[in-house]
Amino acid sequence: MSQHISFVQREELKNKPSSDALGFGVHYTDHMFVMDYEEEQGWHDPRIIPYGPLTMDPAAMVFHYGQAIFEGLKAYTTPDGTVQLFRPDRNMKRFNQSCERLHIPTIDEDFLLNAIQQLLLKEKDWIPTEEGTSLYIRPYVFATEPFIGVRPSKQYKLLVILSPVGSYYGDQLSPVPIYVEEKYIRASVGGVGEVKTAGNYAASMKAQKEAEAKGYSQILWLDSKENKYVEEVGSMNIFFKINGEVVTPELSGSILNGVTRNSVIELLNYWGIPVREEKISIQEIFDAHARGELEEVFGAGTAVVISPVGELTWKDQTIQVNDKNIGPLSQRLYDTITGIQFGKTEDEFNWTVQVDEVRV
Amino acid sequence: MSQHISFVQREELKNKPSSDALGFGVHYTDHMFVMDYEEEQGWHDPRIIPYGPLTMDPAAMVFHYGQAIFEGLKAYTTPDGTVQLFRPDRNMKRFNQSCERLHIPTIDEDFLLNAIQQLLLKEKDWIPTEEGTSLYIRPYVFATEPFIGVRPSKQYKLLVILSPVGSYYGDQLSPVPIYVEEKYIRASVGGVGEVKTAGNYAASMKAQKEAEAKGYSQILWLDSKENKYVEEVGSMNIFFKINGEVVTPELSGSILNGVTRNSVIELLNYWGIPVREEKISIQEIFDAHARGELEEVFGAGTAVVISPVGELTWKDQTIQVNDKNIGPLSQRLYDTITGIQFGKTEDEFNWTVQVDEVRV
Ligand SMILES: Cc1ncc(COP(=O)(O)O)c(C=O)c1O
Ligand SMILES: Cc1ncc(COP(=O)(O)O)c(C=O)c1O
Repeated sequence: MSQHISFVQREELKNKPSSDALGFGVHYTDHMFVMDYEEEQGWHDPRIIPYGPLTMDPAAMVFHYGQAIFEGLKAYTTPDGTVQLFRPDRNMKRFNQSCERLHIPTIDEDFLLNAIQQLLLKEKDWIPTEEGTSLYIRPYVFATEPFIGVRPSKQYKLLVILSPVGSYYGDQLSPVPIYVEEKYIRASVGGVGEVKTAGNYAASMKAQKEAEAKGYSQILWLDSKENKYVEEVGSMNIFFKINGEVVTPELSGSILNGVTRNSVIELLNYWGIPVREEKISIQEIFDAHARGELEEVFGAGTAVVISPVGELTWKDQTIQVNDKNIGPLSQRLYDTITGIQFGKTEDEFNWTVQVDEVRV
Repeated sequence: MSQHISFVQREELKNKPSSDALGFGVHYTDHMFVMDYEEEQGWHDPRIIPYGPLTMDPAAMVFHYGQAIFEGLKAYTTPDGTVQLFRPDRNMKRFNQSCERLHIPTIDEDFLLNAIQQLLLKEKDWIPTEEGTSLYIRPYVFATEPFIGVRPSKQYKLLVILSPVGSYYGDQLSPVPIYVEEKYIRASVGGVGEVKTAGNYAASMKAQKEAEAKGYSQILWLDSKENKYVEEVGSMNIFFKINGEVVTPELSGSILNGVTRNSVIELLNYWGIPVREEKISIQEIFDAHARGELEEVFGAGTAVVISPVGELTWKDQTIQVNDKNIGPLSQRLYDTITGIQFGKTEDEFNWTVQVDEVRV
């Protein structure tokens, strides 16, 4: 796919937020990438245009039948002023896996990555440079055909929008309390839990709100069949360090194959720390804690990188992990992954991809 | 809630499709009902305005996190020219149940029903009068706040759009072949399967397409826990008549509480035909067939009313139901329900609601 990407420059550029007021997902850059799909033409008319409102028919299928998928990755600035992406090939691949599962036409992965890079080139002044800040990249597709009937849409829109974001934690990692959900279910094997489709997140809102009301910052989901095996957390995969060994739920078909999860596993292997992907019951975790063997628990995802878990509540039991302190492995993983992402630690794995020509 | 609904008349009215070219979900009327939600103001600014494009921020949460729910009901013309709805209170109630499950702010049910009636008044010339035709009514809500982060939206749009539709079958009921799905799962208890949220339908597209490619018109879903209990079909609930008795899956928490389903149950009770809501394994159905006791199978939903099933395929077994003929009970239910809907059969249940002042 080697279509030319057209460009329409915004007339008046926006004011950029100051780096201490970035937040997460509230500011968008001057331009966006857009492309359309029509059955006869396939994906066509790739363009970079001013960020601005979309015109949607009220019958557009996304509003009714929810065919919508997305990805999330970041662009990081390095000390020498280059800009880089972290394992973007994995996001491109998962983008298409999500498309396939939702019966949305896939797109050439190299083309999409190239489009993202071209958009980054245009928006290079938006890439924040303060410690811990980055430019969040959101590629997504949704159904636009105006048709009220349950079948796949024949028209879609693919967009990439960019949002400068602060560090999730400020300067310091801080362990969070997590609620083990036993009433609501996120996804089941045979469903769409292993892809990034809009409906998965919609389905999680109520449980998330109820947990927040009880004072928890996130939910740990259990499996739908037996309601006893650990799945994942909101927008993170989960890891447990028990008696010197690390375990994480296997890719069962109902959890996301996280880029950060995979990076953690590869780093642990490289460091010679035992790590296993397997079915893990929540009971085992509580048992390990009772034996004094639960050393660390942490989540892993693009937004937070590594998020130490300080407390786990399941039914009426609450356990504290590592006295609610940041564990040394969590810290080491956070430092190493962010070090590689921001070009401060040597990238022995070839995980980073330079965005050609961009210097900030 | 007694807000005034403002009205902006469309300048040039559309051409109406002829009654033999209605189809389903392709034509929309001249006006639509719209209302907005903002955290500070609640639901506000109810208005009937020309049907036309919506302006949406690319970061609008519905595109990313899928908070979207809908309802579907119809307006029917009667022989004396009045227009009526069928059990709309049930749709209004389910609308709010869907909202609650998706953490979307609910709306006053009477207000919404009144808004629909006012819209119907304006659009009365669009209500088709040919045998079997009706005006499909689609109320829906979706998240509009421009924010990229997983939490409930703080802004929503509620719309009602109208679409004149033909009879699903033309003149004759025709039995359909159905594929019992054992690879994909639609919903699980604890999930969102019992409400009408966009993501449920998105999640079904791939399975539906694969079944179509094998020559089936619909899928019969099984439960997510054991993959053996019957759930429902695409946009219909399912019924089996076995040895003189009718059974339908109980409201387990993962299937929709269909208005048509409930009407079928009430009619059967009224007619003195035994009907039970219970857990039904697909094996029982095949066993009943083997014993020669499976008399009829039919789906029930607003779009099709009653849809006889002529064939069921599960794994590598295919059974024919009633020699692929329309069963007498299916026909009787179809005739009675459509009779009541179109005002040709006495409505002993008080199911119909006249739309005030509308005469076509
Ligand atoms: C449901 C879910 N699980 C896990 C993750 C972590 O995946 P990644 O590390 O690729 O960001 C995410 C975030 O993308 C997610 O949405
Ligand atoms: C998943 C699902 N099941 C069942 C039904 C039937 O419900 P009703 O009879 O209220 O139309 C529908 C259609 O609305 C549906 O979408």
